[in-house]
Amino acid sequence: MSSLLTKSKWLELSPKLKYVLSDCDGVLWNGDCAIPGAREFIATLRKDGKRVCFVTNNSTKTREQILEKCTKMKFGTSLEDVYGTAYATAAYLKMLGVGSVYLVGSPALHYEMTALGIRSTGLGPDELGGNWNSWLSIKLEDGIQAVVAGFDEHFSLAKVCRAASYLRNPDCHFIVTNRDQSLPSERKDLVLPGTGCIISSLETAAGRPPIVVGKPYPTMIELLKKQFPDLDPENTLFIGDRLNTDIELGRRQGFKTLLVETGVHNRKDIDPLKAPTYYVPSLNDLYGYMQ
Amino acid sequence: MSSLLTKSKWLELSPKLKYVLSDCDGVLWNGDCAIPGAREFIATLRKDGKRVCFVTNNSTKTREQILEKCTKMKFGTSLEDVYGTAYATAAYLKMLGVGSVYLVGSPALHYEMTALGIRSTGLGPDELGGNWNSWLSIKLEDGIQAVVAGFDEHFSLAKVCRAASYLRNPDCHFIVTNRDQSLPSERKDLVLPGTGCIISSLETAAGRPPIVVGKPYPTMIELLKKQFPDLDPENTLFIGDRLNTDIELGRRQGFKTLLVETGVHNRKDIDPLKAPTYYVPSLNDLYGYMQ
Repeated sequence: MSSLLTKSKWLELSPKLKYVLSDCDGVLWNGDCAIPGAREFIATLRKDGKRVCFVTNNSTKTREQILEKCTKMKFGTSLEDVYGTAYATAAYLKMLGVGSVYLVGSPALHYEMTALGIRSTGLGPDELGGNWNSWLSIKLEDGIQAVVAGFDEHFSLAKVCRAASYLRNPDCHFIVTNRDQSLPSERKDLVLPGTGCIISSLETAAGRPPIVVGKPYPTMIELLKKQFPDLDPENTLFIGDRLNTDIELGRRQGFKTLLVETGVHNRKDIDPLKAPTYYVPSLNDLYGYMQ
Repeated sequence: MSSLLTKSKWLELSPKLKYVLSDCDGVLWNGDCAIPGAREFIATLRKDGKRVCFVTNNSTKTREQILEKCTKMKFGTSLEDVYGTAYATAAYLKMLGVGSVYLVGSPALHYEMTALGIRSTGLGPDELGGNWNSWLSIKLEDGIQAVVAGFDEHFSLAKVCRAASYLRNPDCHFIVTNRDQSLPSERKDLVLPGTGCIISSLETAAGRPPIVVGKPYPTMIELLKKQFPDLDPENTLFIGDRLNTDIELGRRQGFKTLLVETGVHNRKDIDPLKAPTYYVPSLNDLYGYMQ
């Protein structure tokens, strides 16, 4: 069962921690607004000698761009402390030996793949647009070894057509950055569709499930462990705002987990079978405990 | 268990039939090519006094347009013998008393709703296009009572954003024409995405399942029964090319069912627990039996 992370529980937990892994959107900031107390909390953790790494399912930013956003938002960090799914997906493809990709995704994902020598087509709006008769004239490229999908603001059915057609080949990998259903938003009356809305569409057409690189799957933790071999359940806390990605990843890894209620989910959404170790309204509360 | 519909089985079945309900795409034609023997089979059934009705999940044609296509393809019929999901969805909304809709769908669906006095917005490409920052400026309309979705070649994440935002209101109905994963295609190397690819994306964002009007759900059969009150399991055969829509609908209604292998599925795809009564390569075989 989950419990509220009180000051006394925090003071008991804190000395055991060497690593604090945190999601970004909905935890540190929403859009371009930092969550009050979050900067001070992270800065104090670092001053106390904890290693703080940011682990985000955002697939629309390169590792450098995530670092840039952290710096701009005054969560100053270094490149080896930020992990995003654009970078992790490219690293995963490289490991598989994939050299040629059909991409449904962002310029950042394209950039990270290119940086590792992976060729891709599909970036930007599909030239065929919204006229389904024209899809019958699609020319499929030879040698596509994987369909890779992440967030793509130009997502369209013409792209679904190409992706699912490549995926008819059972040897073609189907690899996606993440399945977040929605994005945190300042406007509470809007549901901003996440990468998950793209993936479920592709999966429906392809008739087979993808491999997911992002949270709650372990690829980013495996990359982190290469950097920090002593990262383990005894010394690590995972902080996030989504139960089915952040908290689920931490839970599967055996880390202590903390749900903050400044993003997508709150304590009422907790499934007792998949509960975080703790929940707290905001990182501001934790910063308060440090005073 | 299914069995091949042989000549002797057909000659035994045929005299019991008063109604033959048939899917269109993949059974009567593929694209603009009639399936050999299909015209002659349907014409002979009619000459023998059977009532033949066409029941299609296609949501991109009004009832008149389906009739027009049948006439053009020389499956001549009359308006009361054709049932499509654009028409059936409008009829279903009318029954619910819905007057104002956010539509992800085709001009045909818009037309059928308008004909029944149902106002809708959303037709055509979303004005916001592929720039996700602009979605934050979306103005939601007041008084939307249902999100209605069918095939929409202009499907985009901006539409998902609007639809899912309306669906935050638990009183807003979520009604879709069908969930066919793909469309039959002459090009066997292409997967043409069906309405199901749109619906799974909307469902992911909305976090709740829709009501489905089309096959395998019974709305079109209920409309048919108003027209033909003596239609029943003893005197009805349902013919289709999709196991999870055509055959499943017939099975749920207790009709005899026949899978033809000229469209999406074939005998190897049959799940023994949801098997059709019969399968046959093509309507051409049945026409052969009639000679």
